[in-house]
Amino acid sequence: MQSLIDLDDLSIGLLDNIITLSKEIAANPSDFYDALKGKVLATLFYEPSTRTQMSFQTAMLRLGGRIIGFDNPSNSSVSKGESLKDTIRVVSGYSDIIALRHPLEGSALAASMCSKAPVINAGDGGHLHPTQTLTDLVTLTHEKKRLDGMSIGLCGDLKNGRTVHSLIKTMSRFRGNSFVLVSTKKLGIPQYLKDILNASGCGYEEVHSLDEAISECDVLYMTRIQKERFDSENDYKKQKGVFILDKAKLAKAKKDLCVLHPLPRVDEITTEVDDDPRAKYFIQSEYGMYARMALMIKMLENSKKEVPKFPKQTHDVVCDNPRCITNCESYLPKMYTEGGDMLECIYCAQRLLI
Amino acid sequence: MQSLIDLDDLSIGLLDNIITLSKEIAANPSDFYDALKGKVLATLFYEPSTRTQMSFQTAMLRLGGRIIGFDNPSNSSVSKGESLKDTIRVVSGYSDIIALRHPLEGSALAASMCSKAPVINAGDGGHLHPTQTLTDLVTLTHEKKRLDGMSIGLCGDLKNGRTVHSLIKTMSRFRGNSFVLVSTKKLGIPQYLKDILNASGCGYEEVHSLDEAISECDVLYMTRIQKERFDSENDYKKQKGVFILDKAKLAKAKKDLCVLHPLPRVDEITTEVDDDPRAKYFIQSEYGMYARMALMIKMLENSKKEVPKFPKQTHDVVCDNPRCITNCESYLPKMYTEGGDMLECIYCAQRLLI
Amino acid sequence: MQSLIDLDDLSIGLLDNIITLSKEIAANPSDFYDALKGKVLATLFYEPSTRTQMSFQTAMLRLGGRIIGFDNPSNSSVSKGESLKDTIRVVSGYSDIIALRHPLEGSALAASMCSKAPVINAGDGGHLHPTQTLTDLVTLTHEKKRLDGMSIGLCGDLKNGRTVHSLIKTMSRFRGNSFVLVSTKKLGIPQYLKDILNASGCGYEEVHSLDEAISECDVLYMTRIQKERFDSENDYKKQKGVFILDKAKLAKAKKDLCVLHPLPRVDEITTEVDDDPRAKYFIQSEYGMYARMALMIKMLENSKKEVPKFPKQTHDVVCDNPRCITNCESYLPKMYTEGGDMLECIYCAQRLLI
Repeated sequence: MQSLIDLDDLSIGLLDNIITLSKEIAANPSDFYDALKGKVLATLFYEPSTRTQMSFQTAMLRLGGRIIGFDNPSNSSVSKGESLKDTIRVVSGYSDIIALRHPLEGSALAASMCSKAPVINAGDGGHLHPTQTLTDLVTLTHEKKRLDGMSIGLCGDLKNGRTVHSLIKTMSRFRGNSFVLVSTKKLGIPQYLKDILNASGCGYEEVHSLDEAISECDVLYMTRIQKERFDSENDYKKQKGVFILDKAKLAKAKKDLCVLHPLPRVDEITTEVDDDPRAKYFIQSEYGMYARMALMIKMLENSKKEVPKFPKQTHDVVCDNPRCITNCESYLPKMYTEGGDMLECIYCAQRLLI
Repeated sequence: MQSLIDLDDLSIGLLDNIITLSKEIAANPSDFYDALKGKVLATLFYEPSTRTQMSFQTAMLRLGGRIIGFDNPSNSSVSKGESLKDTIRVVSGYSDIIALRHPLEGSALAASMCSKAPVINAGDGGHLHPTQTLTDLVTLTHEKKRLDGMSIGLCGDLKNGRTVHSLIKTMSRFRGNSFVLVSTKKLGIPQYLKDILNASGCGYEEVHSLDEAISECDVLYMTRIQKERFDSENDYKKQKGVFILDKAKLAKAKKDLCVLHPLPRVDEITTEVDDDPRAKYFIQSEYGMYARMALMIKMLENSKKEVPKFPKQTHDVVCDNPRCITNCESYLPKMYTEGGDMLECIYCAQRLLI
Repeated sequence: MQSLIDLDDLSIGLLDNIITLSKEIAANPSDFYDALKGKVLATLFYEPSTRTQMSFQTAMLRLGGRIIGFDNPSNSSVSKGESLKDTIRVVSGYSDIIALRHPLEGSALAASMCSKAPVINAGDGGHLHPTQTLTDLVTLTHEKKRLDGMSIGLCGDLKNGRTVHSLIKTMSRFRGNSFVLVSTKKLGIPQYLKDILNASGCGYEEVHSLDEAISECDVLYMTRIQKERFDSENDYKKQKGVFILDKAKLAKAKKDLCVLHPLPRVDEITTEVDDDPRAKYFIQSEYGMYARMALMIKMLENSKKEVPKFPKQTHDVVCDNPRCITNCESYLPKMYTEGGDMLECIYCAQRLLI
């Protein structure tokens, strides 16, 4: 594991190792005070995400390592007119591991191609955010003692939610999970996820009311629907309550339901729910810290610092996703996988007709 | 001592312990290099205060601890649309102690009600700033070898100065102190402080010229009067010199006068005074670092990480102070103490007629 | 060595010590994990320079020290209305060493006059940037195994480039170096540098095409010519290619050429050059980290914390350089060296007719 770009790249065995290690750290944190002594994490945040950055920073500091980085691209000379490649080449000379947050899709993969140090994708636009999903897995392992055989409810904007997509993909790799998808008609999961679910054999149902769905769930993953995603102001006013978790709806849920939320929340969970023992969204962020600690220990175990060989272009084709990193950083080799009459961009997963 | 919101909450005995420890640290700093090894301080600054933040950060780093936090609320995703409660719940999961600076009054108390980790009030609007006063106490203990039996001059805007109010309140708890209050007529200390002074038996006099007052002082605490506090531009021009400390005025002072200033200064002390051995305002900031080191050691001695039980509302009354945190964070229970026909808000000390 | 303001202040012997130490650190970094344990570096950046700041921070962290500071003057209360002197006095009480970046010329010297801790000039306006030149020396020592007897090409804007001027001055102190100066007619090196070169006995030639010059160079130091430095848009379009290093030009160079660049680059070196083994500009930034590590160890070896005595004014003359720190911080004593009928400002090196 040189870099972590996509959680799908990790085998179930490796995921299991990381989760097990995160439990050991949570149980005996002081045993790990010097685990990464002398190591330096660079948190390069090309868009602000204070919470994610703090989680990475705390994780490294609690292992005895040090942190450098920036969080404020508009003030940062690094990001002014300099290519991602040059910044990564220089910073990977200073540091032992990099956590990159960037608004463009495929940026973490691009960075890993130029970096002497392993890169962790801390969010690349709307594309991937693997440590959030790792956080969810560690939370479920702690709180439900298993990752399989569960009825998993997901509520909110399931069409655009990066964390939701990633969680569905990952949980479909474990046996016996089924999904209850609670959303408006327009904001259901995209077709490619349905294809994955069908191929995996996991059952799923799409419903339009949290109230109906909550009683059968072992896990409920709440996310927000932004006002502007509704058809009209009127629609928003009528419908929004349907997707809000409050005490009344929670009363119908199982005794051992586990309520998760990637945070920050706005009003999709009322604060009265916070004191219910089934509310696990705050402790979830602590598990995220342990998950990142375990991940960095594993990544640095056999890490060698060397500039990787730049890969070769596969097709002389421009990706038509304007948010793909290749359209901004022109030195990057265009690379696609072929499937039928389609090309899939290796950076951003955009599909193009040949 | 779970959290430190108001210096008045500390007994004289506990204050004494902290001051004594700060002297031990100042004398042998290397004995404390690992005193808080493995601990993490979060400095959450919802308004910038670089100096205070640096003082806290240096204090923790010099004890072997680590720091996370933010100083730049406009760039911070944490502060965007997220409640103080949620931020504090998450960050107190990452950290062992929190220093909070926030523009709203009562915010530190509110934070301490949601936090798994002890909270230090690093300034909550115009309300309290206990570590500044602790700094002043440590400075006086070092420089005057006592906290009692002194004539304490305070010069500048005594009406609006948070640090001045807090210092007067605290010094009135020690025997035999008297106060020389140097200000314009309009900018004298408020009535509630006079009540405290009268009750404590400390003498005080109100004067309007530093030149007249300086000779009797053992301590002179300088603060600024902002131009806009004067009645008119004309008044300002005529009077401002009266409240500026320069070499001429200092010539009339005692040989062992101790001149303090919370910094930053603008022009209320001329730079020629800096080289006088009685100028203690720069070394005062160093004592502030030692004070914060001692405070954090004491606070973390018996600290357990657990979410406190939320207190119950005492009165169904809205605080009419627009800068009170309860008017911004609606989940907070309204709480008041009763006295005669008045309610006093527990968060911001606003008094309401019942 | 209390502070480092100008690399010229260091003897060749001391430079040699720092370079030798930097090689030991690069060879065995883990031997130095605790070399500055308990020490605090303050990085005070009054203008953003993320790369330089990161280099200093990483250097201190890799030696077991800690860092405080700011990088964002517009948000920083320290820089609002407070004099440089007051900020430095306070921060030098918190820290053991200060790296100062400031837009005004002479600011680092001014800071060193007020500081209890040694100050490193991390760039004072267009004036000096000694650790960049130290980086270049460490790079050449590693990559060319010598600092003398080389043909050194410098390409780009040689008139305004601070790093170029400093490198020429320093390399002219070593025997047998000669210089190939590649630029437009208007952007050649200033007369005072020619005077230095002539006095040192180093040969130099001025040429206008990199293509002609490259074959004789042992070292090629690339910098950018900004578009607005050309006479006209037309001129820019015709000429810019002449000063860009690409594969075709590199083909004419020596096998052991060492290509340097202070970074960030824009387009003055094409990315195809990056994979050539002669491209040393990325590794150069790593040498910069080792150089700063060695420098800080040396500076802290015999450092005592005390406020230096303020020097006396030498001439009652105002410096006519509007970017000189003395015109902004009025408490600074005016100081000049006399030479013929000229005064030279000790802060910014501006020359005034008496």
